[in-house]
Amino acid sequence: MNIGAHSYEEYTELVKSFHGSAAPGLMIGGFMVDLALKNLPEGEFFDSICETSSCLPDAIQLLTPCTTGNGWLTVLDFGKFAITMYDKSSGNGIRVFLDKEKLKNWPEVNNWFLKLKPKKEQNHDLLMSQIKDAGHSILSMQKIKVNPETVSRGKSGPSALCPLCGEYYPAKHGEKCRSCSGASPYIK
Amino acid sequence: MNIGAHSYEEYTELVKSFHGSAAPGLMIGGFMVDLALKNLPEGEFFDSICETSSCLPDAIQLLTPCTTGNGWLTVLDFGKFAITMYDKSSGNGIRVFLDKEKLKNWPEVNNWFLKLKPKKEQNHDLLMSQIKDAGHSILSMQKIKVNPETVSRGKSGPSALCPLCGEYYPAKHGEKCRSCSGASPYIK
Repeated sequence: MNIGAHSYEEYTELVKSFHGSAAPGLMIGGFMVDLALKNLPEGEFFDSICETSSCLPDAIQLLTPCTTGNGWLTVLDFGKFAITMYDKSSGNGIRVFLDKEKLKNWPEVNNWFLKLKPKKEQNHDLLMSQIKDAGHSILSMQKIKVNPETVSRGKSGPSALCPLCGEYYPAKHGEKCRSCSGASPYIK
Repeated sequence: MNIGAHSYEEYTELVKSFHGSAAPGLMIGGFMVDLALKNLPEGEFFDSICETSSCLPDAIQLLTPCTTGNGWLTVLDFGKFAITMYDKSSGNGIRVFLDKEKLKNWPEVNNWFLKLKPKKEQNHDLLMSQIKDAGHSILSMQKIKVNPETVSRGKSGPSALCPLCGEYYPAKHGEKCRSCSGASPYIK
């Protein structure tokens, strides 16, 4: 079964090159994006939502025009194994998720997804072959309508000079940049 | 001047293919990642931080092993034009930022960065040629130490079934999944 415009093997190589390894979640993610693309509502442009920050965003970045940096991909930290593609103007789209009922037919995938076995007890080859054989059959779809306000980054607007670090930041963030307001990841 | 292992022209094509267009911020971002990579502290593994969600994360994803989905790239919504690469075990690293003083030597880049001209009054060709000619010369570096707690995603841990949507989510999020707790991007 193909994934987007790629054979399964081609997609595996793409994933290894970009993501570092052919992680199980990213291989399932390929089928998820493929299914969503085949069921998109009409419309010229679409944006994507990924409901987990783990693995899945990279399937979207590899198979669609949506990336973290171009703003067409929104990653929500819900820890849910689901993706959505939707028409930006209407909000209408398709959500694809890993279906817990269908997953029961593929025990090693189910074990992996629900962490029922410690990683070293998982049978990696069986897991990967079940993912490939299962393809779309462990997925379900639902029609959704996205509320654009929940995913819009907004415009950055005018810049201001932070009085503490002396760097520019979006003036709308307040009197100091967010880093100097306590969110800095650096140890002083 | 090269960008990572690529010529400037090769990098431009990579950017167009992944990001959709050779956005000015992403071309400057290529030089930023290049400079950071050339000044990394010793260490086998490094992670990345991007201090804006616009454009720059894609330069990191194209030129380093760090991606949104593999967890080695942390995007902070500071709206600041800066990136950091650091050794994961020690936290020691290099922060590269667009230097507002050096930028004054490149008026069209300065106009673009500070939005001093409406987009349609910008001279796009001049902007892009100044970016290419400026290369590393509009950037500065500082040594930093990252507090790992500020960028760790933590483990997702055991899953729970959401009593409202019936889907699995990380049990540590509470009694309902975050989507059903009010953060859903979908209109019901």
